[in-house]
Amino acid sequence: MLKHISKSLPFLFLLGVSNITVAQSQSPASLKKEVQASIDQRFKELTDLSDRIWAFEEIAFQETQSSAALADYAEELGFRVTRGVAEIPTAFVAEYGSGSPVIGILGEFDALPGLSQNKVPYKSPLNEGAPGHGCGHNLFGVASLGAAAAIKDLIDKGEIQGTVRFYGTPAEEKFFGKLWMVRAGLFDDVDAVMDWHPGPETQTAVQKGLALVDFQVEFFGQAAHASSDPWNGRSAGDALELYTTGINYYREHVKPTVRIHYHIQTAGEVVNVVPDYSRIWVRVRDSSRDGLIPVYERIQAMAEGAAIMANVDYKVNLISGVHEVLVNRTGSAALQNNLETLGPISYTDEEQDFARKIQEATEKPQIGLVSKIEPMEETQEHSMGGSTDVGDVSWVVPTIRLRATTAPNGTPWHSWAVVAAGGMSIGHKGMAYAGKALSMTMIDLFTNPELLEAVKADFKENKGDYIYKGFVPDGPPPINSNLQ
Amino acid sequence: MLKHISKSLPFLFLLGVSNITVAQSQSPASLKKEVQASIDQRFKELTDLSDRIWAFEEIAFQETQSSAALADYAEELGFRVTRGVAEIPTAFVAEYGSGSPVIGILGEFDALPGLSQNKVPYKSPLNEGAPGHGCGHNLFGVASLGAAAAIKDLIDKGEIQGTVRFYGTPAEEKFFGKLWMVRAGLFDDVDAVMDWHPGPETQTAVQKGLALVDFQVEFFGQAAHASSDPWNGRSAGDALELYTTGINYYREHVKPTVRIHYHIQTAGEVVNVVPDYSRIWVRVRDSSRDGLIPVYERIQAMAEGAAIMANVDYKVNLISGVHEVLVNRTGSAALQNNLETLGPISYTDEEQDFARKIQEATEKPQIGLVSKIEPMEETQEHSMGGSTDVGDVSWVVPTIRLRATTAPNGTPWHSWAVVAAGGMSIGHKGMAYAGKALSMTMIDLFTNPELLEAVKADFKENKGDYIYKGFVPDGPPPINSNLQ
Amino acid sequence: MLKHISKSLPFLFLLGVSNITVAQSQSPASLKKEVQASIDQRFKELTDLSDRIWAFEEIAFQETQSSAALADYAEELGFRVTRGVAEIPTAFVAEYGSGSPVIGILGEFDALPGLSQNKVPYKSPLNEGAPGHGCGHNLFGVASLGAAAAIKDLIDKGEIQGTVRFYGTPAEEKFFGKLWMVRAGLFDDVDAVMDWHPGPETQTAVQKGLALVDFQVEFFGQAAHASSDPWNGRSAGDALELYTTGINYYREHVKPTVRIHYHIQTAGEVVNVVPDYSRIWVRVRDSSRDGLIPVYERIQAMAEGAAIMANVDYKVNLISGVHEVLVNRTGSAALQNNLETLGPISYTDEEQDFARKIQEATEKPQIGLVSKIEPMEETQEHSMGGSTDVGDVSWVVPTIRLRATTAPNGTPWHSWAVVAAGGMSIGHKGMAYAGKALSMTMIDLFTNPELLEAVKADFKENKGDYIYKGFVPDGPPPINSNLQ
Amino acid sequence: MLKHISKSLPFLFLLGVSNITVAQSQSPASLKKEVQASIDQRFKELTDLSDRIWAFEEIAFQETQSSAALADYAEELGFRVTRGVAEIPTAFVAEYGSGSPVIGILGEFDALPGLSQNKVPYKSPLNEGAPGHGCGHNLFGVASLGAAAAIKDLIDKGEIQGTVRFYGTPAEEKFFGKLWMVRAGLFDDVDAVMDWHPGPETQTAVQKGLALVDFQVEFFGQAAHASSDPWNGRSAGDALELYTTGINYYREHVKPTVRIHYHIQTAGEVVNVVPDYSRIWVRVRDSSRDGLIPVYERIQAMAEGAAIMANVDYKVNLISGVHEVLVNRTGSAALQNNLETLGPISYTDEEQDFARKIQEATEKPQIGLVSKIEPMEETQEHSMGGSTDVGDVSWVVPTIRLRATTAPNGTPWHSWAVVAAGGMSIGHKGMAYAGKALSMTMIDLFTNPELLEAVKADFKENKGDYIYKGFVPDGPPPINSNLQ
Repeated sequence: MLKHISKSLPFLFLLGVSNITVAQSQSPASLKKEVQASIDQRFKELTDLSDRIWAFEEIAFQETQSSAALADYAEELGFRVTRGVAEIPTAFVAEYGSGSPVIGILGEFDALPGLSQNKVPYKSPLNEGAPGHGCGHNLFGVASLGAAAAIKDLIDKGEIQGTVRFYGTPAEEKFFGKLWMVRAGLFDDVDAVMDWHPGPETQTAVQKGLALVDFQVEFFGQAAHASSDPWNGRSAGDALELYTTGINYYREHVKPTVRIHYHIQTAGEVVNVVPDYSRIWVRVRDSSRDGLIPVYERIQAMAEGAAIMANVDYKVNLISGVHEVLVNRTGSAALQNNLETLGPISYTDEEQDFARKIQEATEKPQIGLVSKIEPMEETQEHSMGGSTDVGDVSWVVPTIRLRATTAPNGTPWHSWAVVAAGGMSIGHKGMAYAGKALSMTMIDLFTNPELLEAVKADFKENKGDYIYKGFVPDGPPPINSNLQ
Repeated sequence: MLKHISKSLPFLFLLGVSNITVAQSQSPASLKKEVQASIDQRFKELTDLSDRIWAFEEIAFQETQSSAALADYAEELGFRVTRGVAEIPTAFVAEYGSGSPVIGILGEFDALPGLSQNKVPYKSPLNEGAPGHGCGHNLFGVASLGAAAAIKDLIDKGEIQGTVRFYGTPAEEKFFGKLWMVRAGLFDDVDAVMDWHPGPETQTAVQKGLALVDFQVEFFGQAAHASSDPWNGRSAGDALELYTTGINYYREHVKPTVRIHYHIQTAGEVVNVVPDYSRIWVRVRDSSRDGLIPVYERIQAMAEGAAIMANVDYKVNLISGVHEVLVNRTGSAALQNNLETLGPISYTDEEQDFARKIQEATEKPQIGLVSKIEPMEETQEHSMGGSTDVGDVSWVVPTIRLRATTAPNGTPWHSWAVVAAGGMSIGHKGMAYAGKALSMTMIDLFTNPELLEAVKADFKENKGDYIYKGFVPDGPPPINSNLQ
Repeated sequence: MLKHISKSLPFLFLLGVSNITVAQSQSPASLKKEVQASIDQRFKELTDLSDRIWAFEEIAFQETQSSAALADYAEELGFRVTRGVAEIPTAFVAEYGSGSPVIGILGEFDALPGLSQNKVPYKSPLNEGAPGHGCGHNLFGVASLGAAAAIKDLIDKGEIQGTVRFYGTPAEEKFFGKLWMVRAGLFDDVDAVMDWHPGPETQTAVQKGLALVDFQVEFFGQAAHASSDPWNGRSAGDALELYTTGINYYREHVKPTVRIHYHIQTAGEVVNVVPDYSRIWVRVRDSSRDGLIPVYERIQAMAEGAAIMANVDYKVNLISGVHEVLVNRTGSAALQNNLETLGPISYTDEEQDFARKIQEATEKPQIGLVSKIEPMEETQEHSMGGSTDVGDVSWVVPTIRLRATTAPNGTPWHSWAVVAAGGMSIGHKGMAYAGKALSMTMIDLFTNPELLEAVKADFKENKGDYIYKGFVPDGPPPINSNLQ
Repeated sequence: MLKHISKSLPFLFLLGVSNITVAQSQSPASLKKEVQASIDQRFKELTDLSDRIWAFEEIAFQETQSSAALADYAEELGFRVTRGVAEIPTAFVAEYGSGSPVIGILGEFDALPGLSQNKVPYKSPLNEGAPGHGCGHNLFGVASLGAAAAIKDLIDKGEIQGTVRFYGTPAEEKFFGKLWMVRAGLFDDVDAVMDWHPGPETQTAVQKGLALVDFQVEFFGQAAHASSDPWNGRSAGDALELYTTGINYYREHVKPTVRIHYHIQTAGEVVNVVPDYSRIWVRVRDSSRDGLIPVYERIQAMAEGAAIMANVDYKVNLISGVHEVLVNRTGSAALQNNLETLGPISYTDEEQDFARKIQEATEKPQIGLVSKIEPMEETQEHSMGGSTDVGDVSWVVPTIRLRATTAPNGTPWHSWAVVAAGGMSIGHKGMAYAGKALSMTMIDLFTNPELLEAVKADFKENKGDYIYKGFVPDGPPPINSNLQ
């Protein structure tokens, strides 16, 4: 059983107050000023890089140019870059410094299908039908790398000792690339990991999100002419439809936190043949892996029932899945402190106007951009909404997470509106802000050993005796999968 | 594999022309006059008996009074009556004479639920909600017993030698009582059997009807409060609904001659409980037992699939089933000959008027009663429509079948209109006609050994090497079944 | 829009401290001692009455003897009894005293089908298949009447001025009798109402429960012989099955607080007829009437879709439904105070042993009876579980609610175990306890005008501008309904 | 109502015996020898042409090269060629001669998806995934054009007067190109049309095949995130699934001659979005257009029901459809005469060996090729199996049809085995045989006016007062349809 305990208070006194002698000659506050300056100084380079990735519009496991652009930039900065890690061509690790502690930072860069959009506040595809950065990952990878670079500067100056490591993590939107990076042991020697995500507000991210598993069911029947002798056919299409009917009946018997959705991928090719093959992609979510497992098992078993009913064969293939996030409230409190130090992003009238036009176009209240620092929330037992493969990282290494404003309040996520805002100054400002907040918190982790220990203790306590096991099938990652 | 060959022609020369010396002192034609007179003489007794059974309105396996009335009458006539045969309280055998040949005749007497009706040509229940003789079985048993009695008279006079045996066969409308009578070996020593059925026309019955099997599927789940914790319930109702969905998808994959129908018997008792029990009655038909078996097996297997999908247990219970009729065209030709000798029934203006009013009320062409003798039809490979447990008798002993007019042309069967006509002179005339035609043909069977041999040879050839096995579960018949 | 505001704190100072001069010569605390004594004194009469109702085992709208027993007893005590109110033969009102304030108290007395049980701690039907008091309503009506009687005593003595009114409210378990009593205006002149419910713990009841609506859908098709001409049939059974399939697909698209359950009532009578009639009972629940309405409307609309798909006609009939409870935290705080004054019920070793045996038989932790006074809970926005027609009363008059221990901790509700405990001393003790707590709180309402005003203000504020409209079809209540 | 009367006998005397003086100087028998020689003489050209079309592997409406090859060859032979008729780029007409009578002949040339195959007797794709001539249409068009060329030779020689017209008819396998050619009036001035089809036996084709209609149903819902707020989604996928469920329930209520099949084309693109669009291709068949229409209307209506159930919008689009063939038994008798004159095709040992290997590979009895001339069958009221757009031609002009052996007995049609046999000498021989039989029968039509009149009278009588109306939507043919 997973346990989530939120006892961060005993560690709060540690924040910002280090009574341990370490190598740095400056105070943490002063170092934090330096990293802010470092981000500002590279602002042009970083926004250029972000805009290039924005324009590459590359989706999961196909982010060749995006990955190369980030890796090249890291290399130029002097990082030791290892490309193609975890059997994934677009996954890489960029490291700087040496020795302990090892602080990681995650960077995503994949786009979403069908969301290509111009940098205008109304729907207007740049390349009709092409992908677009509807989740802001063009900013994500760049901000994290910018933060790592700022830390590198301090290592160069001898202000900080240890290793900073940037993880170029592909395919977050589909397949969940981090699963294979975790499986490959790439996080085994890290002390703590930082991470952020673009969003419509600025806050320390302390909700767990949802655990999730993706799998496919294939049915194999016997084709027959649908008019001449349908009685000689055993329909894989029937099996699939009976399967989905069963799933929909089953909805009554899952807890309210469970979500089940599916996508019929194929159920016959031509109208006059009893189909001998069908395939469906099924996703199950719950607020925790513990709740997920019995539902996942039940829905797998239902495939056998459907196959018997339609007199066909079947096969269930695990694709992948993610854990809910193991929230580290101790580390989150340090991040919150830095957010409050930084204060909100300020916007120009033009940016607020752009935001309000997006809100008008998406029928949301036209309140513009909101970047005030939210108080750190309670971690809910059951959170709503999305899932992330950062969840899996968080079960092997303490993970501290930020959300920074890159889009107008109320923006429908995974939409053209996120693409538009992420390609212009609104997104750029959020990216720079995230880079600063992340590097400031990394300074805490590098320079305050007690904090780092407390972060680790929080992780250990909340993880309990759970032995992490990812939802990953044996064999290589589905880079060129024909599952789609 | 069942074979049905219709080579009746070689035997036609036998009909009406006997060159074998037997005991009777009169010609068959003369004997046939006698049995006609015998029926006419007992007409009042027979119609009274029929009207009493009509008024008893007793359904399958509950025909206590109807069975007793027939058995008592047989006993009064001097028959040796054995009641409660084949573990069925309402089944009996009434025998007269001794030695060979043994010629049987079948008599049914069960009513149908919900069809109670006055003797008027418009819908008017006698006892609201009570059963009624919507299939004319009040006439069926009486006519057959009347025919047996006419033969008895000839045995008494020494005109005929051998044994006539009347079978009181209950529960034809539901459960198919003859199955257990066949299982009990009650037909093992019979040379040939005769049978008739009320109908809207007069003809030798040479179509096979449909083979059929009835079974129930029960599902056993886990109850739960449907609002508080439906996730702790495993729904037997869901299983049943998924099962019927599967059956309906399966309809595409059966041959056009197959029929599948079902009746949901129970699927939960109250609205706020996930049901832990459900039950469905399923019937499968095809033009032959050979076509039926694979469909029956498939639909049984589907119950397992549905149970797996809903995570419940299940049980399949065979109720009963019937074979298609093994038509005996040799014997049928003899019957046809007698029909043509008898000629059609004649009706009064009042009877025709009554018939036309029924036709008006049931929106049929108002052409009145039709009793002309139809030519003997070709036996179709695939016949439509109904099923009868006479089918099972026909696979163990040669069976010759008649249909006689007891209702207006076009009357919807199993309806109030059949009840109305069967309770007054239209039905009575058909009953008497049937008694005559049956006893005339029995005279052929008793007095023409070559015909009887030809009838047996026809039976043997068409039956081929099929080993009869009835659709009967082990154990006693479902007299007090809680399956309903 | 319904608003629920929980501002009870400003009124807490009012409790137990009255600075207004009223007629009574004794302190409230002293009066509360008197009502306790009054309940104790009538304990034998009350338990006899409860045991008689327990043995009557009468279900919704058929509680003739139970209703009469309570009404007779009230009459003997001197109450003015009006029987057969609101067009319901088993509903009655028993009133004592005169003038303001008018304080009401509710009493239920209907049993549940199929739960008949002996007074033993293992499953053992008293009358196989008969109803039983699986919700403890045998105790419910009696305790409330006992409380009213205790108040009557004080009115008799001149200690209290005003009117106490007992409502005999039938059919809570099905159809929700209070709906018609509200519709008849029986609560229009009441200042506040009290109410309790048997349960496995003792606490002030401040959760809202669920709003609910019950309705039936009927489908009307065209019968046909399922084998001869199913193509001439239009199946009401198909329509019903397509309807339930649609409902199950719809489950994905309702909020997690919504519950939909149904019970197939009939979908054909015999296996070989395409059914021309089918009927289903559907229940929809949500945490509030506001959430319920759009789901209810959607599911009604789906009936049209199913009817079109199966080419049949349909009809939707509203049966009844209830509102969620409008919780009155001000009144609840007064009740809580009295509970804390009374302290927990104490049990004998034999009673605890009986309780543990029930827990053993129902596979619950064997911790015996728990009667400690729970602190008053926060009122949840979305509560789980059951529904009650007290909800409707609570929207027309301030309603204060109690739960008192009458069964072992963990007892599955609506089960034999509740019947067993409710028929012996465990139930009797809970009944007496409830009678005391209710009458003590009524003393507060009678003697503390400021409290009563605060209770009314709380009601008014939380009700807001909602105009109450019950889920009741036009016409009389379904006393002899053929809907079941 | 369509009537089909088979009174061909009165016209049989006409065959082969012309007592009318016409222009030709030779007897019909002699002319028939000439056309046989003509086919033999062009055998190399025709087989080359057939093999080229076989290798083009072009599917419906994309047969650019195939159409051009045939049209070019016709042009070389001197025919007047009109390309791109009926708004279809690949449809053409090639005409020779002038004046009456005008005798048409049909030629198809489209391949089937996914059947590419080498000329070997086991499954072996020539181009993996590419189309192949699994219905033998590479032979079909060429044989017909060869027959037309043989007639042209006789016109050139003055042996025959009138016009021969070859119709290059694309897209028989999908969309049914002839529908638009009929709509364009291209058959309005023709006296009779001939036609053939490759097959596993040789016979006059006198069965009606099945009428058919193809249509699509589109559902339009509202997308939503399937995890965050599925309650804001209205699922076009649900609508589609409810629609197919309804169709499968409906199967019980169609006559045994009806076939309904469908192909889910799209029901959502990604797993985590409630799909706002879905589309299904539905095909309905029956043995006649009369039986088809009410089923087609019913299934269209069901789309509305499904849309209501899922709360979405919908649209039904007619694609196309065909009539059953109006069989012309008078013309067929003339063709049968010629088949019997020609006698069966003879095969080499190598060909029979190739055939038996195909039969082995497809698990059929290894009896080789069967080319004996079957007797002309009775025209069944309800025939099984396929459908053809020749049906539509047959309702506007008398149509005489042949099947000739081009593949081994028992070959599964629309399979690699047909492709293999059709690409080598087995197919070539059948093609030449068809060319001869067709041109011989055309000679009868050109030279025997009484026969032609009798053929027309047969057509007129059987067509009755039916006003032909094709299953064609308004607007141009779906050449570049996005419906697929």
